[in-house]
Amino acid sequence: MTAEALPETMRALCLTDYGGGPHALRLVRRPVPKPAPGQLLVRVKAAPIHPADQMFMRGQYGVKKPLPVVPGFEGSGTVVAAGSLAGRLLVGRRVGVSSAQSQDGTWAEYVVVPMSQCLPLLPGIDDEQGASLFVNPFSAWAMMELARQGKHRALVQSAAASTLGRMLLRLSLQAGIPLVNIVRRAEQEELLRGLGAEHVVNSSEPEFEERLRLRCHELGVTLGFDAVAGAMTGQLLQALPEGGTVVVYGALSGEESRVPVGELIFRRQKVEGFWLGTWLSQGFGKSQLRALVEVPLRMGKAFETPVRACFPLEAAEEALRLAGTDMTSGKVFFTPNA
Amino acid sequence: MTAEALPETMRALCLTDYGGGPHALRLVRRPVPKPAPGQLLVRVKAAPIHPADQMFMRGQYGVKKPLPVVPGFEGSGTVVAAGSLAGRLLVGRRVGVSSAQSQDGTWAEYVVVPMSQCLPLLPGIDDEQGASLFVNPFSAWAMMELARQGKHRALVQSAAASTLGRMLLRLSLQAGIPLVNIVRRAEQEELLRGLGAEHVVNSSEPEFEERLRLRCHELGVTLGFDAVAGAMTGQLLQALPEGGTVVVYGALSGEESRVPVGELIFRRQKVEGFWLGTWLSQGFGKSQLRALVEVPLRMGKAFETPVRACFPLEAAEEALRLAGTDMTSGKVFFTPNA
Repeated sequence: MTAEALPETMRALCLTDYGGGPHALRLVRRPVPKPAPGQLLVRVKAAPIHPADQMFMRGQYGVKKPLPVVPGFEGSGTVVAAGSLAGRLLVGRRVGVSSAQSQDGTWAEYVVVPMSQCLPLLPGIDDEQGASLFVNPFSAWAMMELARQGKHRALVQSAAASTLGRMLLRLSLQAGIPLVNIVRRAEQEELLRGLGAEHVVNSSEPEFEERLRLRCHELGVTLGFDAVAGAMTGQLLQALPEGGTVVVYGALSGEESRVPVGELIFRRQKVEGFWLGTWLSQGFGKSQLRALVEVPLRMGKAFETPVRACFPLEAAEEALRLAGTDMTSGKVFFTPNA
Repeated sequence: MTAEALPETMRALCLTDYGGGPHALRLVRRPVPKPAPGQLLVRVKAAPIHPADQMFMRGQYGVKKPLPVVPGFEGSGTVVAAGSLAGRLLVGRRVGVSSAQSQDGTWAEYVVVPMSQCLPLLPGIDDEQGASLFVNPFSAWAMMELARQGKHRALVQSAAASTLGRMLLRLSLQAGIPLVNIVRRAEQEELLRGLGAEHVVNSSEPEFEERLRLRCHELGVTLGFDAVAGAMTGQLLQALPEGGTVVVYGALSGEESRVPVGELIFRRQKVEGFWLGTWLSQGFGKSQLRALVEVPLRMGKAFETPVRACFPLEAAEEALRLAGTDMTSGKVFFTPNA
């Protein structure tokens, strides 16, 4: 089934211990995996480092794969082999991939993925954008779909200058749904205004909470997206008019969500979570099918991932360190075959 | 309209400052209020001190009345005057009352209440039980109604030995809905088993969290009621099977609810609140009307309030102090006309 001569072994980053810190991730040499029926073998061109990957390595993610395991939830590359006849049509094609639920990920020279978790890339989409097709664009799409289905007329989000935050901003502008954007620094404020944001509030400024509350009340915000947790969850609850919902989808603060009880009891506020894994596991409903068609078409437009730096697998420690700081500057990628 | 000679003035406990501590509540002499049309004047026999009253005095409750104000959300007594003809039929009757939204409460010799917030007491119901008709029984009723409407097959509650906790226990036994009861002390465990509780978990014992989790999974608990907040909210979320909801209705710990983000994101857990004020303000739906009929009939049975001590208004400081400690021992009441 192989379309070209493949090496016997490959380099891969291998996690040996959840929560074991930087030393639990090692560059190893292991056999190039063989695609089973329904699977493809992809030579990896680029694979991003997401906060979700870092949570996974700390053992705090929704999925724990058997160890040792290669991390990396998504990537891009070229299909070089297929486990079944249908897959052979894709050999030679550039694809974006999402790694399998319980198998090795993309931080390696090669990865095996289910055919259903590959999308062919349009020619204008480069390796880094193609490697960022699933996690953030599908999350942003699904979150905006939540807002639409709940008939929310205005939204608020924390960590608005993050990659996902910028995607939500662009989607809200296209949909004409007002969005209040919370950032921490003045340059993030400028960045978002440059993208067309009308409502930006800086959490480092005095009277942040009062300004946030006023803006949310003026616009009638009923739904908040929170990637920060800690005190931010409570600040969002206090800012929303009565009967609001805060959907937590990340914990960039590294803390638990702190929820003032009076908000729940007397103001009918609610706290929920969002995970792309759950949304996708609901099966292929109308929303999921629309996402499969529309997300790839918006790549490089609403769904542009800013690129900060690319590293070989050998520089994993440096790459992970950089990816954990100043996420506004863009994503850090591994380019295992560069 | 007056059925008997009434004094010009009365003694009342008067709050002058929210969050002002014990000295913000003073015994004063003020005019006996006059009932407007649709209102009744009641000579107060008994009025309980609830955690909600203490929250109100700290300014943390869902309602802030204009100061100075007489606290006391409910009580019992005899109707002595009425503001309209229809109300005269009630003069001389013993009633349980819930105080008006924005007017003085029951910690006084007399209180004016809307007719719609009075229920005549059956002869077998004593003053203390009659004074405890609204806050806890209606809350317990409404919370069980929530469980029924949400088709929850099993429940868990914190602070299970509280007055409301015991009412929920009795209702769950009558309804045949399994309920896991969390207590803090061995004697509370015995107390609840004496009332028929099958599932009691002591949060002071080692491996509490694991035992709670096991019990909730065995029974398939999908809804938790939390009166404690702080770490307890998170412990409940972690104990429930995936997709569970914790309804916070109190903050006996005095802390914010701490919510582990992974529970929201990866396990689809939700956090909401319950307040009787909200439930009642939804208007007289089927549930509310059934409650008005059935709650009074269950007084002294499912809805029995344990009595710890009764105090004159003069002993307010001592009464409030006692009411804030060891709530398992029962409710503390003011008996302004004893």
